[in-house]
Amino acid sequence: MTRALFADRAVERSRKLLCPVIAGLDPRPELLSTGEENAAGNSPRRLAAAYRRFGETVLDGLVGVVPAVKIQIAFYEALGLPGVGAYAATVRAARERGLLVVGDVKRGDIGSTAEAYAEGHFGAAAHQTAADVDAVTLNPYLGRDSIDPFLSHCRDAGKGAFVLVRTSNPSAVEIQDLIADGRPIYRHVAALVDSWGTELRGRLGYSSVGAVVGATYPRELREIRTAHPNLLILVPGYGAQGGTASDVAGALDELGSGLLVASSRGILRAYRTAADRGASPSEGVRDAALRMRDEIWTAFRARDAGGAST
Amino acid sequence: MTRALFADRAVERSRKLLCPVIAGLDPRPELLSTGEENAAGNSPRRLAAAYRRFGETVLDGLVGVVPAVKIQIAFYEALGLPGVGAYAATVRAARERGLLVVGDVKRGDIGSTAEAYAEGHFGAAAHQTAADVDAVTLNPYLGRDSIDPFLSHCRDAGKGAFVLVRTSNPSAVEIQDLIADGRPIYRHVAALVDSWGTELRGRLGYSSVGAVVGATYPRELREIRTAHPNLLILVPGYGAQGGTASDVAGALDELGSGLLVASSRGILRAYRTAADRGASPSEGVRDAALRMRDEIWTAFRARDAGGAST
Repeated sequence: MTRALFADRAVERSRKLLCPVIAGLDPRPELLSTGEENAAGNSPRRLAAAYRRFGETVLDGLVGVVPAVKIQIAFYEALGLPGVGAYAATVRAARERGLLVVGDVKRGDIGSTAEAYAEGHFGAAAHQTAADVDAVTLNPYLGRDSIDPFLSHCRDAGKGAFVLVRTSNPSAVEIQDLIADGRPIYRHVAALVDSWGTELRGRLGYSSVGAVVGATYPRELREIRTAHPNLLILVPGYGAQGGTASDVAGALDELGSGLLVASSRGILRAYRTAADRGASPSEGVRDAALRMRDEIWTAFRARDAGGAST
Repeated sequence: MTRALFADRAVERSRKLLCPVIAGLDPRPELLSTGEENAAGNSPRRLAAAYRRFGETVLDGLVGVVPAVKIQIAFYEALGLPGVGAYAATVRAARERGLLVVGDVKRGDIGSTAEAYAEGHFGAAAHQTAADVDAVTLNPYLGRDSIDPFLSHCRDAGKGAFVLVRTSNPSAVEIQDLIADGRPIYRHVAALVDSWGTELRGRLGYSSVGAVVGATYPRELREIRTAHPNLLILVPGYGAQGGTASDVAGALDELGSGLLVASSRGILRAYRTAADRGASPSEGVRDAALRMRDEIWTAFRARDAGGAST
């Protein structure tokens, strides 16, 4: 199976929809409707079933609005085996709706073990049930041989990988900001990630090996964008964590793409708000995603009107 | 629930058994008996069932020999949902046999997501089915707030965490050996990990927040051992990857403990060898683990006889 490169598919959809937003599915009990939360209680099995329905409803709202969704496996793993089943079902539901799926799994292990992870998230067993994702997030700490097994899937099956460069959390600085040879570690990592993906650059200029850079560090985001114009960047930390539209607008390319700006709570909260007042949660989610798109688009236009450059 | 600290439980058992070996369960089709491998074919479901039986048989051989086992979740995740079920069943089987279980999961994410991972591997849903592990491996790249949610379980429920410091693979050097302030990154990480665990030091001197340092880098292993005497160190890379008994003996404490030296293929290969010739695979595994223990013990005695110090 040879497919178009992930980066081309992602950037093309983002441009077509005029939408650099990737909606984050991070289910938690308090994001369900009040009735659903109460009915599920502390039962992992009932919560997993509720997450599954929640995911389908959210995805219904996102079709035709966002190019991709990011599904955070940790919230499913928290429920044990039924949770992992709900994760796979949600991946499948997203792919059935034509959305690109990034599995936010942040895996990282040595060569032969990394191969097993690549199999689990990209490979045959997952593929049989359509629960394989289009791209994953990976941790760079173990270096290239922990990434390599994923790259063959990027080449042969149109998959993608986003490697952590600058994470959005406060203690990101502890290791990522240590200075080696006059540059912080995250800059070294950005350069490595860029080099790992040179053979996977698509016709739109971006590589299927991308980077994760938090919106909460806008200066670093622009710096990495400028230094590595071929990196497709997954940007968490928008909204609830503090990243703003103008923080990310400065790092978009001239067509308003090249980033996938993730928001989960900012979009997902609309589900409960709508459900609890008897409105359609799918429509609530859709409106929230459209609002986020418009915010970024407004900031992007203001940037270009102001003559600022990326 | 307040339990003895993980570090005390692990070091006490290791000393009692005179055995610093942690057996790695990394199932792969080629480690099953030839008959089992052929019968399972490429079916994830049949392979998962075979891994489950394989795990139970291996664990039967390890009881009373090693203090702990390390179960590598990647090889189970490779089989999708049935594989994750087999992982949980294998964790449960190990705990039922009284073995300490390290879940080799290498998770790492920002605060609230790390909480979800901690729940998944230490928390209520896993605990209900006895599939929670005694300790996990974690990735340090995101800094302290990605570790914190695990520490409360270490304090309150006797759990442990081993944070990657110096991994055993060749490309470990790419990021871990960058020099900041005159010291390689892995030394900075070792110091951070040590500081994260100061409140979790037990009566035997070791902390429940330990480090992962590969046997394939013996100089770095001794260096970290000397600089951080309170770190309980999980040591992968013995045997198949090239680490030797004398490589690890130099980093044992005066009672032959303080490390958990992991071997998987070196021990697990005995399963197929025994099964294929009609002998007991449990006994084959037991003998292989005992041989590894004796190798390390012989090197440890030679070290002390030679007057070398840690």
